[in-house]
Amino acid sequence: MYRTHTCGELRLANVDQEVTLSGWVQRVRDLGAMSFVDLRDRYGITQLVVDETSDASIRDAVNQLGREFVVQATGVVRERSSKNDKIATGGIEISLTDVKILNKADLPPFTIEDETDGGDEIRMKYRYLDLRRSPVRENLVLRSKMAHAVRSYLNDMDFIETETPVLIKSTPEGARDFIVPSRMNEGQFYALPQSPQVFKQLLMVSGFDRYYQIVKCFRDEDLRADRQPEFTQIDCEMSFVEQEDILNLFEGMTRDLFKQIKGIDPGVFARMPYATAMSKYGSDKPDIRFEMLIEELTSTVQGQDFKVFDEAEYIGGIVVKGAATFTRKKLDKLTDYVKRPQVGAKGMVYVKCNEDGSLKSSVDKFYDNEQLKRWVETTGAKVGDLILVLSGDKSHTLNALGELRLEVARQEGLMDKETFKPLWVVDFPLLEWNEESGRFHAMHHPFTSPKKEDFDLIESDPGAVRANAYDLVINGVEIGGGSVRIFDKDLQSKMFDLLGFTHEEAQSQFGFLMDAFKYGAPPHAGIAFGFDRLVSMFAGLDTIRDVIAFPKNNSGRDVMIDSPSMVDKSQLEELQLESTVKADKE
Amino acid sequence: MYRTHTCGELRLANVDQEVTLSGWVQRVRDLGAMSFVDLRDRYGITQLVVDETSDASIRDAVNQLGREFVVQATGVVRERSSKNDKIATGGIEISLTDVKILNKADLPPFTIEDETDGGDEIRMKYRYLDLRRSPVRENLVLRSKMAHAVRSYLNDMDFIETETPVLIKSTPEGARDFIVPSRMNEGQFYALPQSPQVFKQLLMVSGFDRYYQIVKCFRDEDLRADRQPEFTQIDCEMSFVEQEDILNLFEGMTRDLFKQIKGIDPGVFARMPYATAMSKYGSDKPDIRFEMLIEELTSTVQGQDFKVFDEAEYIGGIVVKGAATFTRKKLDKLTDYVKRPQVGAKGMVYVKCNEDGSLKSSVDKFYDNEQLKRWVETTGAKVGDLILVLSGDKSHTLNALGELRLEVARQEGLMDKETFKPLWVVDFPLLEWNEESGRFHAMHHPFTSPKKEDFDLIESDPGAVRANAYDLVINGVEIGGGSVRIFDKDLQSKMFDLLGFTHEEAQSQFGFLMDAFKYGAPPHAGIAFGFDRLVSMFAGLDTIRDVIAFPKNNSGRDVMIDSPSMVDKSQLEELQLESTVKADKE
Repeated sequence: MYRTHTCGELRLANVDQEVTLSGWVQRVRDLGAMSFVDLRDRYGITQLVVDETSDASIRDAVNQLGREFVVQATGVVRERSSKNDKIATGGIEISLTDVKILNKADLPPFTIEDETDGGDEIRMKYRYLDLRRSPVRENLVLRSKMAHAVRSYLNDMDFIETETPVLIKSTPEGARDFIVPSRMNEGQFYALPQSPQVFKQLLMVSGFDRYYQIVKCFRDEDLRADRQPEFTQIDCEMSFVEQEDILNLFEGMTRDLFKQIKGIDPGVFARMPYATAMSKYGSDKPDIRFEMLIEELTSTVQGQDFKVFDEAEYIGGIVVKGAATFTRKKLDKLTDYVKRPQVGAKGMVYVKCNEDGSLKSSVDKFYDNEQLKRWVETTGAKVGDLILVLSGDKSHTLNALGELRLEVARQEGLMDKETFKPLWVVDFPLLEWNEESGRFHAMHHPFTSPKKEDFDLIESDPGAVRANAYDLVINGVEIGGGSVRIFDKDLQSKMFDLLGFTHEEAQSQFGFLMDAFKYGAPPHAGIAFGFDRLVSMFAGLDTIRDVIAFPKNNSGRDVMIDSPSMVDKSQLEELQLESTVKADKE
Repeated sequence: MYRTHTCGELRLANVDQEVTLSGWVQRVRDLGAMSFVDLRDRYGITQLVVDETSDASIRDAVNQLGREFVVQATGVVRERSSKNDKIATGGIEISLTDVKILNKADLPPFTIEDETDGGDEIRMKYRYLDLRRSPVRENLVLRSKMAHAVRSYLNDMDFIETETPVLIKSTPEGARDFIVPSRMNEGQFYALPQSPQVFKQLLMVSGFDRYYQIVKCFRDEDLRADRQPEFTQIDCEMSFVEQEDILNLFEGMTRDLFKQIKGIDPGVFARMPYATAMSKYGSDKPDIRFEMLIEELTSTVQGQDFKVFDEAEYIGGIVVKGAATFTRKKLDKLTDYVKRPQVGAKGMVYVKCNEDGSLKSSVDKFYDNEQLKRWVETTGAKVGDLILVLSGDKSHTLNALGELRLEVARQEGLMDKETFKPLWVVDFPLLEWNEESGRFHAMHHPFTSPKKEDFDLIESDPGAVRANAYDLVINGVEIGGGSVRIFDKDLQSKMFDLLGFTHEEAQSQFGFLMDAFKYGAPPHAGIAFGFDRLVSMFAGLDTIRDVIAFPKNNSGRDVMIDSPSMVDKSQLEELQLESTVKADKE
């Protein structure tokens, strides 16, 4: 061992002890008579000191130290004359009796401090140096702690952690697979799993009863900030349970995490039907840290010869508390926001409920005071509030109102990162209509069971059938989702019919699962959590990238190891493959 | 919830309670007046009973039950008149008041009992049914428990579990990589990791100090019973430590596992230099549950005009206790064993130390009694023992003696599966000569550090340099291995020279690691355990396949999901690849 203590553990109680520390030189301050060295390791920073009483050879050695040198330092713990109460070791320092350079270091391309001068690109290229910075490393420490807390909870609940295979079979449904050529099976390919869905259901058929796994999944999709080609799920499945059992158990797990990791009790999780989420929040993942619900105004505002509204399928508004004083500029900016193609509204109407009791709207030409009073009644706006109204076809307008609601909340500081409001969104539709393919797609996946009370709608109005499907949403972020599965062969066949699968297609894609179901499938249900997102939410971050040790960029590249890369032609030949990329054919 | 209790938890204390159980029908016994149903779930088996006092509808329902039907059963707990003390619930039975078939089942292709009638192939095809059998499932439960115990131990020791990427970069060194075409990066490929070696070393450069991960690794190698294309490692690395620290910490972890999981304290682990392992056990992974060490006889037996011995580089023997009574047939079988091409000896010589004090050998023509006495002295054989002798070139003969030793132990029942003798094999050679390439290869890997005391041999006699490398061997199986890494740039360059890497080759393959080392690499060391093997040893199994939920066969196929498989031509086109397999080109 190169040390007796870490750089984070010495205290006043250790004064007069001889100790040896090892770590990286954070900073050297040469004050002439004295020199101070901040020595850093994962556990903290300890101040080393030499002064005129120190051996000349040690003073020389200290003078040779550069930033990020790796050093083994021996000395005696002393009480500091001027203490630093910002760090845990700030009461003491080490009076050096020996110092050894274990490794020199080139000057790093950016400073290894909590606040660095390095841009995103250079920090990704030197990720191993960025990971040296405490805030970055602490995200990974948090991740490790959370994984262990999840495992402990589920183990206590008798779950079996079971590893499912990574080399599986490609299925044309869903997102794009990464495929892996098989050398031993000519012309054939494995696929990397997008999720262990089928395997966890098979494990239920096997009677495993309670399964979980913290597992890497893969999707070859075009990337954005919150997506990585490889990501991690907490994947769970249980037998002989109903929706209520799953919600309770995993609410317990999530609450346990909040308590253990953040010291917060988020209380009983709210529940909301999908239909309410859509109509009141314009989103299937409502952020319920703040109100500002959407109120429908269609019948209230139509019929006053304002063509925009009269021709709209739907008109709705939100009330911004105390925002009657918003400037023209601020309102224009919000209008610009809703008109962005990603939001897609045509324009925005407002009503200010002024402190003096007067109402001032952007459509005063069409609506008089009496009429505007009805808007106020319908929306429940109070004196000093602002009503923001959008119109158009129903689903787009609700969506735009949802986005507007979030934007206002961001601007008004309503999204406190240390407030957590978990929410179960339930009663998702079983199916969603896909315009492109002209048929229904499974909203969750083809094994999701319809609600019993909606069985009679399956033939008559499939789009209205609700599913035993649920999402866990925290602060507007979808953290997990799952469903009660179909375990009845006949119902599963009917489901495939609804989804437009021929018998052959269903058989070729899910045949082995269907076969398995013949031999006694128990009722079962499951859930999967996006572990990266869960950690990044606990860390107060906006992107999952910072909770992944070695993430990829938006082109799916690891710029540190420069991957992906070309491979030897012989490797491809062995796999009986040829690249059709031109540059490669020279 | 479909049950109030599991099938494993009811006891006499529950008598008179109304309970609901769910599970699979293991067996129905119709005794006319009464019928018994064994209901099974993961937790156990509970006996259900109907008799003439039961409702006719329930008796009818019970009569419809078939093997592996999924059933929800309600009834009252009663004390059994004839108890079954082989199962935990054997004191009670459930007098049924209601029974509901949740799912019917086709007759399974083999019996779902501890001892099944299913062959290997059919059980692999219906793996989900094989996993229903208790002994198979219990292996996976054991695996889950062991993983959690490992994690708890390492978390307590301040290790950070860090996920390293699965989509990495192909390197031509080592075993063959699985590669993954990148759609977003034309003509380029990811590789699946053979181990996270480079990443864990980078994490040490990052100051993570203590890293571990239970992680899937991949090798596209031709398979045998104990190899799978994807396998799981407990992968660990520590900074500021020396070999002794690693051995102690991971001996602690392994001992903890033995205590917690098997209730065994294996005591302090033995240690043995590689050279001793080779000369006394003929193997780098000695099974030390039994003695039967190899003794060299070269100088003892040469010079008596026995040409076979006189021309041999090396002659050695083992003493089999009390085996002077071995029959001719038994000796012939052992001779056949050592002559198998996998063992490769030319023949075997024996000396029987008979109870009457006489010596009888297979080379009496060349050696008289006095001479044979010297064999007895050298080997330490006692009256009643048998000396088995092999000769030839040194390394092959030691290896053959090692195999013979194991074969005799197998036959004599010296390999008790419930005795565990862990052993650290240390002081491995740094390099091994590769005849084919005419150069040295790294025995462990190119980052393994040479022993300080052997530094001066690096130039003069590289083959004699010992490494700070170690293996954990239990009962003759290599369970883990690792090394103290080189953290000095100059030493690393010298190592690459020794291995015949040009500067360019070293740079292109390990450039980013070498670059990272410029910025202050700490002294570090690590180890990786084969988790599949560790579990299979704890389970008392000979193959890792039975501790993997969904293993692949020797052609790398998952016969259950029929993978790998053909993919759509469009998938290949999107990846700019073409198959050169003929059948595929039609």
